[in-house]
Amino acid sequence: MLKNDTLIRALKREPTPYTPVWIMRQAGRYLPEYNQARTRAGNFLALCKNPDLATEVTLQPLARFALDAAILFSDILTIPDAMGLGLYFVEGEGPKFERPLRDEWEIRNLFAPDPEHLRYVLDALKQVRRALANEVPLIGFAGSPFTLACYMVEGGASADLRTVKTMLYSRPELLHHILDVNCRAITAYLNAQIEAGAQAIMIFDTWGGMLSTDAYREFSLNYLQRVVAGLKRKHGAETVPNIVFTKGGGLWLEEIAAIGCDALGIDWTVDIGAARKRVGDRVVLQGNLDPAVLFAHPKAIREQARRVLAAFGDGGGHVFNLGHGVSQFTPPEHVGALVDAVHELSRAYH
Amino acid sequence: MLKNDTLIRALKREPTPYTPVWIMRQAGRYLPEYNQARTRAGNFLALCKNPDLATEVTLQPLARFALDAAILFSDILTIPDAMGLGLYFVEGEGPKFERPLRDEWEIRNLFAPDPEHLRYVLDALKQVRRALANEVPLIGFAGSPFTLACYMVEGGASADLRTVKTMLYSRPELLHHILDVNCRAITAYLNAQIEAGAQAIMIFDTWGGMLSTDAYREFSLNYLQRVVAGLKRKHGAETVPNIVFTKGGGLWLEEIAAIGCDALGIDWTVDIGAARKRVGDRVVLQGNLDPAVLFAHPKAIREQARRVLAAFGDGGGHVFNLGHGVSQFTPPEHVGALVDAVHELSRAYH
Repeated sequence: MLKNDTLIRALKREPTPYTPVWIMRQAGRYLPEYNQARTRAGNFLALCKNPDLATEVTLQPLARFALDAAILFSDILTIPDAMGLGLYFVEGEGPKFERPLRDEWEIRNLFAPDPEHLRYVLDALKQVRRALANEVPLIGFAGSPFTLACYMVEGGASADLRTVKTMLYSRPELLHHILDVNCRAITAYLNAQIEAGAQAIMIFDTWGGMLSTDAYREFSLNYLQRVVAGLKRKHGAETVPNIVFTKGGGLWLEEIAAIGCDALGIDWTVDIGAARKRVGDRVVLQGNLDPAVLFAHPKAIREQARRVLAAFGDGGGHVFNLGHGVSQFTPPEHVGALVDAVHELSRAYH
Repeated sequence: MLKNDTLIRALKREPTPYTPVWIMRQAGRYLPEYNQARTRAGNFLALCKNPDLATEVTLQPLARFALDAAILFSDILTIPDAMGLGLYFVEGEGPKFERPLRDEWEIRNLFAPDPEHLRYVLDALKQVRRALANEVPLIGFAGSPFTLACYMVEGGASADLRTVKTMLYSRPELLHHILDVNCRAITAYLNAQIEAGAQAIMIFDTWGGMLSTDAYREFSLNYLQRVVAGLKRKHGAETVPNIVFTKGGGLWLEEIAAIGCDALGIDWTVDIGAARKRVGDRVVLQGNLDPAVLFAHPKAIREQARRVLAAFGDGGGHVFNLGHGVSQFTPPEHVGALVDAVHELSRAYH
């Protein structure tokens, strides 16, 4: 049914004529038309919560570039917002919560949200599916249990995760309670996205890489495994593959590959050839160009894309992406140069 | 001659009765007496440049805790300051340069500094040595060529290293020129510190871990190797061991261990037992407790210190430290609890 099913085939380890490519944060601030839509919406959160506008910005990068997938425009913090923490955005400061989780009684009173409070996400997802008309697959996503807990406890982004790590080392049982609630909420949310039409699932563990190895296993990987185990693998006749990405998780690739996910996102610090040797055929690899390469001139972008493709080597099992979200300072035409280079240069490896 | 030579013995892989411990940034903002000295000096840079006050703050943590080493109070940016870039500090924003390196002619006109412009560091170092009266060894230090280049090109700290990475991918020859100048300046500076009495040398590669594996090898490790190769290994009859620390370098431990350094600093994300298996007997390991553990209560600190010691296991070749500098928000008595726990619990492994 999909006109371009390269991404899904690659995630299922089926042959493809070239390496599919999409870009984390491909609908975002580097695109002038995105910034115009955000201005029309009033702010970032209003944009997320308006299915018409969310559909519009989801499709914007596909109108410019030959991307092999769309990813729903939304935010990983929709879940804690629906739990009642009061998400808001301050220009230039990132996300904040009005009511971060600090006191034991607040934590004990945390519950997975009423699905009704996340209906706007599913409405947007259905609308994007209709608008895409099966041109390319649509990826749904969520944050990891630990990453959501970081924001929920810190009350926003944090360079050192001081508050959540203090809880981790001093009151681990409280953090485990939050993670357990998050885990159930995320699993239900992702399954609802699959029911609404998401054709692949991505889980972003943005902050797991800030943990020690022991703490990563206990407080992040453990819960990632539970989410993956709870995901629907089929929707009707279609397989719905999933991708797990721990930024800064390069030390733990073998362990992440063992949790049952279909694909592993890797950041740009990892050599993708070395990663492939480490995980073998257990998972597909997604990544991993340094997003900063897109600041350079198109000839350098092409050369660096070639290096990633050559490092991965022959055969399938690779989804090209950046190793982190595209920067707002990226010239849009450089994204186009990357997508075209990947499509052209990757044919030699298939 | 040293009354407590545990650190030097450990770095030389000689038997010690316990695991020596010092703390990165042990003379720093978590100590009220440090903040008072900084207020007296006027600002951070004036504190660095005044040998009397630099000596005073270097000794402050040793008056409180049974640390096995002193590290000169100074800053890694003294070298680019002496090159004429105009270092200054804005409260709460970290270091800045008045004249960052942006234009090709500025880069082509960069030279290693006149040693006279760094005399204040050597004066402070000699004064600390006298004041220490051989109680514990004194560590001298510098930033890595790449880390200094990051600050010199960005003009300050940067979350994404956008400017220096744009140069790296678009004009690599310009970055190589800066790194070559830095390399020669750092080697001369560290050798001058050894001549002035530094008994061990630490090289901080704070930003190397932000690079892709290929770029790390070419733009950071390569120059670390040249610095290490140029270091004096003896001062009179005394061996002067060195420690190289790339924050976020856990993927590359084998390669860093191969550059000829005596010890490898590792950050808290790495399991120190796994690191030991990977590098074998080639280098001593320094690290690697998560600095955030020091926000927890002393019982938790003791338990987490025990886990690091147990993960490293029996025998010598371990210098205990945090996996990154101590946070300004750390209660001073928690550092004392850590130092005492390491001394007590490590005896079982020696």
